[in-house]
Amino acid sequence: MPANGTSEILKSKRSSWNVQISEFARSTRNLIREVVEGVKLEPNPEKPMIPLSIGDPTTFGNLKAAKETIEAVRKSIENRKHDGYGPAVGSEEARRAVAKYSFHQGHVSPNDVILCSGCSTSLDMAICALADRGQNILIPRPGFSLYQTLAVSYGVEVRWYNLLPERQWEIDLEQLESLIDEDTAAVIVNNPNNPCGSVYTREHLKKILDLAEKYYLPIIADEIYEHFTFPGTQHTALSTLSENVPILSCGGLTKRFLVPGWRMGWIIVHDRNNVFAEVRKGLAKLATRSLGPNTIIQASLPVILEKTPQSFFKSTTNFIYRNAVLAYDLLKDVRGIKPIMPNGAMYMMVGIDTDNFPEYPTEMLFVQDLVREQSVFCLPGTCFFYPNYFRIVLTVPEDLLREACIRIADFCENHYKLDKRVIENGGLQAVDLQ
Amino acid sequence: MPANGTSEILKSKRSSWNVQISEFARSTRNLIREVVEGVKLEPNPEKPMIPLSIGDPTTFGNLKAAKETIEAVRKSIENRKHDGYGPAVGSEEARRAVAKYSFHQGHVSPNDVILCSGCSTSLDMAICALADRGQNILIPRPGFSLYQTLAVSYGVEVRWYNLLPERQWEIDLEQLESLIDEDTAAVIVNNPNNPCGSVYTREHLKKILDLAEKYYLPIIADEIYEHFTFPGTQHTALSTLSENVPILSCGGLTKRFLVPGWRMGWIIVHDRNNVFAEVRKGLAKLATRSLGPNTIIQASLPVILEKTPQSFFKSTTNFIYRNAVLAYDLLKDVRGIKPIMPNGAMYMMVGIDTDNFPEYPTEMLFVQDLVREQSVFCLPGTCFFYPNYFRIVLTVPEDLLREACIRIADFCENHYKLDKRVIENGGLQAVDLQ
Ligand SMILES: Cc1ncc(COP(=O)(O)O)c(C=O)c1O
Ligand SMILES: Cc1ncc(COP(=O)(O)O)c(C=O)c1O
Repeated sequence: MPANGTSEILKSKRSSWNVQISEFARSTRNLIREVVEGVKLEPNPEKPMIPLSIGDPTTFGNLKAAKETIEAVRKSIENRKHDGYGPAVGSEEARRAVAKYSFHQGHVSPNDVILCSGCSTSLDMAICALADRGQNILIPRPGFSLYQTLAVSYGVEVRWYNLLPERQWEIDLEQLESLIDEDTAAVIVNNPNNPCGSVYTREHLKKILDLAEKYYLPIIADEIYEHFTFPGTQHTALSTLSENVPILSCGGLTKRFLVPGWRMGWIIVHDRNNVFAEVRKGLAKLATRSLGPNTIIQASLPVILEKTPQSFFKSTTNFIYRNAVLAYDLLKDVRGIKPIMPNGAMYMMVGIDTDNFPEYPTEMLFVQDLVREQSVFCLPGTCFFYPNYFRIVLTVPEDLLREACIRIADFCENHYKLDKRVIENGGLQAVDLQ
Repeated sequence: MPANGTSEILKSKRSSWNVQISEFARSTRNLIREVVEGVKLEPNPEKPMIPLSIGDPTTFGNLKAAKETIEAVRKSIENRKHDGYGPAVGSEEARRAVAKYSFHQGHVSPNDVILCSGCSTSLDMAICALADRGQNILIPRPGFSLYQTLAVSYGVEVRWYNLLPERQWEIDLEQLESLIDEDTAAVIVNNPNNPCGSVYTREHLKKILDLAEKYYLPIIADEIYEHFTFPGTQHTALSTLSENVPILSCGGLTKRFLVPGWRMGWIIVHDRNNVFAEVRKGLAKLATRSLGPNTIIQASLPVILEKTPQSFFKSTTNFIYRNAVLAYDLLKDVRGIKPIMPNGAMYMMVGIDTDNFPEYPTEMLFVQDLVREQSVFCLPGTCFFYPNYFRIVLTVPEDLLREACIRIADFCENHYKLDKRVIENGGLQAVDLQ
């Protein structure tokens, strides 16, 4: 019996508990964790630690969800009507509430809304639906590392387009265009942006859309920081500027409502002439894998989105804006570093003139020593594919932020060296090359 | 410039908005929905509809979460400490609570627990971590269709092992063994089982484990219905019966605590001699994609798991048991069908002697006409890869269940035909072939 014989041989190949994990799991990498694990975090015992690294605005207790938001959930849990399964894409009422809340994105109907477990899951589903194994997607550099994490596990290649610090982190459109080929499945545009805190003008957004239209590229708009802008800056939803480019806008409660742990996100499908018909179905199918986000939070959405007062949002963004100004003012004249003033979100990027810090060949070593001497921790730019920068989180209490910036300034003063090119020139021009 | 030239040609291939969805999304199929869409649901206007199809025990309002369970969540939302991000695998306190609650599975430490968005996500992560593209996993037939949905999207082949109705739905171990080859990555064992309501004996479970050990196959134990057994039947956790076979046990609050919408599930890693070291890491990495389940429910877990009274669970299973007996008694003597008495979970499978219903070449047509004439809807066995059966849900109010069973009996009486083989034999032996 050769057939049987063969199968016996095959089976006998498993001769030990050699349990492998899948390529999918193996390739789900967490860049931030990997980078941070490579940094020795040994704070100075004389100085209390100040972490400027944590992207959770609720960590320090100074920023908290509105009482209207909390009250809505308390009511949903008490009324006992929302414990059962809901539709996988979210309840009709919740989706209607999100559609209404999203009127600034253009016409949105409840059927255009898919609720997800946080914006992370929105992005996961959007990337998964649009990009196939062997294709590529374009993502920003510096940028939020989750895009790569998600895409690569699906066998999707990522290609980085550059953001230009000297142009308020606008996209280098020419370089972006050079990345596009026939296997490009989508472009991810993150506006307002993490880690830069940039907010794009209508004009710049239109140029992005022109490119998308020229090459027939759908856009995944990560707009989790929508409305998170500083005085004088307006956020424009990408979807309002084009009648032809189909867009999946990813958002959620996380940042604006200060409830990251609740895991309530959504995708808004901006279809154009029905080109997203299949995508819409695909997203609904993907939703059936996990059966949607928590129904208690879903049931609270209509009240949360309608009743959380404007004054609450204003007070959050004002606070972050004041912190941005504070940090910028404290760091802008420090030799060897260069903060870039953000217009929104809750972060600021600070460039390091590595030539002025020859002790630190990489920004990781810079950041590590900043912890060791000053007990201030900022995420190295490498966490965002962007070396020679570090990111400051602006949601910490003002006192801590001030103290942290003073320590950063001290650190730079202590380690600043004149650029060796300047020294080699005989020190004639003591130019600060920042 | 040939390189540029080429790239221009490639780019120009995208000459329209022809947006494709990924193979992953396309292959995420919902068998139940597809089957149900193929059934014309046109109830008899003279009779109120009774759905015996819905796997949500809370649908009819007769089964509801315990007040202790609800109270725990109300406290968590009010105390304002759980709105921030938690660890992706779940908070230490919540994992400790699940570990304690799971002492009947053997030694479980908080580090063995990964919290997920419902048991569906537990299964998704477990399959994703263990099985690679091109490999295969073994799943039960009849069985819960999600296993196939999830596996196929990862490019993992599914192979069905048979459950034997004449042996209380025990596994046909010989047939299972014949499916194993060197590419078999895992076996999924669902006990207690959906759709059969079977609960395996220790002896049977040991034989499954022996096979797993012989071929070095890890097991995914879907134990979402653990503790859901009828008087006289004991559920044994698979993990307690082997010191060598590594097991991922998937569970959650959904069924036992009657809160399907809350999306709180977990994986318990039963490692053996460290063979799951990589799997454990892989699962933790997969958890970072969505950042874990809702933190309010997480924060409530210690109280929910400790304070929900035994009397609550007992009253649920007693109710379902009484319903099982009721339905079984009403259907067991009906000609042409054969109910199989369950020992647990909340379902009963009923076989159809199709030879006795020549009008209905498939059970789908049988089920469809049952709706049209009697306004009773049961899921066709095809939803569970098992034609010629239908599944009854036992959580509906007793009155409705009685009425539904009487209607099913009427329907069968009206459509029952003697087996044509009997007729061809001259009607000499009017044997009921069921
Ligand atoms: C740009 C960006 N997108 C998405 C997310 C994820 O949001 P959520 O916590 O809702 O998953 C974050 C979180 O920091 C983010 O910065
Ligand atoms: C056997 C089985 N496993 C898993 C699940 C999914 O459970 P959850 O709702 O917690 O995702 C179900 C739901 O019906 C089920 O029957």
